[in-house]
Amino acid sequence: MVHNFLYKRIAQFAETDMAGIVHFANYFRFMEEAEHAFWRSIGYSVVMEHAGLRIGFPRVKVECEYKSPLLFEESFCIRVIPGRIGEKSIRFSFEFVRSDETTLVATGTMTVVCVEFAASGEMKSMLIPSDIRAALEQ
Amino acid sequence: MVHNFLYKRIAQFAETDMAGIVHFANYFRFMEEAEHAFWRSIGYSVVMEHAGLRIGFPRVKVECEYKSPLLFEESFCIRVIPGRIGEKSIRFSFEFVRSDETTLVATGTMTVVCVEFAASGEMKSMLIPSDIRAALEQ
Amino acid sequence: MVHNFLYKRIAQFAETDMAGIVHFANYFRFMEEAEHAFWRSIGYSVVMEHAGLRIGFPRVKVECEYKSPLLFEESFCIRVIPGRIGEKSIRFSFEFVRSDETTLVATGTMTVVCVEFAASGEMKSMLIPSDIRAALEQ
Amino acid sequence: MVHNFLYKRIAQFAETDMAGIVHFANYFRFMEEAEHAFWRSIGYSVVMEHAGLRIGFPRVKVECEYKSPLLFEESFCIRVIPGRIGEKSIRFSFEFVRSDETTLVATGTMTVVCVEFAASGEMKSMLIPSDIRAALEQ
Repeated sequence: MVHNFLYKRIAQFAETDMAGIVHFANYFRFMEEAEHAFWRSIGYSVVMEHAGLRIGFPRVKVECEYKSPLLFEESFCIRVIPGRIGEKSIRFSFEFVRSDETTLVATGTMTVVCVEFAASGEMKSMLIPSDIRAALEQ
Repeated sequence: MVHNFLYKRIAQFAETDMAGIVHFANYFRFMEEAEHAFWRSIGYSVVMEHAGLRIGFPRVKVECEYKSPLLFEESFCIRVIPGRIGEKSIRFSFEFVRSDETTLVATGTMTVVCVEFAASGEMKSMLIPSDIRAALEQ
Repeated sequence: MVHNFLYKRIAQFAETDMAGIVHFANYFRFMEEAEHAFWRSIGYSVVMEHAGLRIGFPRVKVECEYKSPLLFEESFCIRVIPGRIGEKSIRFSFEFVRSDETTLVATGTMTVVCVEFAASGEMKSMLIPSDIRAALEQ
Repeated sequence: MVHNFLYKRIAQFAETDMAGIVHFANYFRFMEEAEHAFWRSIGYSVVMEHAGLRIGFPRVKVECEYKSPLLFEESFCIRVIPGRIGEKSIRFSFEFVRSDETTLVATGTMTVVCVEFAASGEMKSMLIPSDIRAALEQ
């Protein structure tokens, strides 16, 4: 695997809950933010026109394991690994690590499927275009 | 004013923050939820096809005053008052009250403008259709 | 399994994203809302004093599979199944179904661990108290 | 006014709604993020121990006016102006501007009150400590 993309972030106040830690559902927003930053880093956007089609990557399966809670104003990194690239799908793996040390905060995965949006808004799965595949695999 | 719509709600865990109270920004989601429930109560939706047009009501100005914090699992009511109906805009007022007593939790307003969405997604303000106006003023 | 708790919900505007569907991360908020309603239905709260201890159930592993997207104002049900009750942990399973039909919208799981909060805010895992276990297993 | 703090941000996918633009309630999260970054820039945190007290700045009144919608992946700046500093309160003003041009996206205000948190979680308003006032006014 060549790609080894790191996304840096700080935990915001609105992301905490009454237990005093970052609410667990926000980790999925963080993974998505990191994934989108990864797409930009290889010259794409997750929402794109491609050869006249409007394509996107909706999630079909996601998971997260929580190892160590994040506190307000803690900074952390998310490593984005496009680990398994199928014909129509990609499984991203994520590792959350504290910025200043090596504590593992969480790990997660998101499996996304390449779809074409019809004008009606309907989604239809499609083969990942070859240039996108090449950019992912380089 | 005839309308006097009440929307009931419970404060959810994910809506609290590390101060142990509902995060202030969520009150705007609550007002919007209450507004949309009000639209449904008079037979409309905030996202609608109307005479072949796709119309909506984006916000142009909103405000909220916080009087008494909401805690996890507290239930509360929001009174929705479509108080000022202009040619193209509506100013909704909101009162948040605890369900079991008469404590005022918060007050707010949202000024929304009637717009037509072009196929491109562009929004253009328009006169509030007369049947919608009639339903609001009845 | 005796418990078969259903939680009803409508998809709110603020929960949609620019793809016109409910954003995937919100499904975890929905599962948690449903779980908390389940706790209330058996006489407990997820945040509780118990025999002088402040106990809670932070998540250690969660996952969701998306089958059919939810649209604005669609109503749906979430079935909550406390499927695997260990010494210190519970694995809840969830099934999202459209209210008016039998379409499966999503399935998910959340594994939570019983912890005691110290005054410092630190969390320490503990055995699930026997009365809570009894209520879960009844 | 000496302070002229700029906070830079990109609009994230999860912050958009089905109208294809950033949901209006998120602007309050953005203002709060910017305010907290401002506090850090002058050496404080919005959640702090101060002379043995745990103090904070809950919001008592907030407002926002929307001028031009933000789209996914648009970058923007928020100017933070601690414009009116009272004995116990601060009124922050905010200006949202697109990063690459001079379009005004939104303006807002947040009035916060200095409070002391009791061990019980209760909040009591207090005079802004003199060193914090000095840092705000410098």
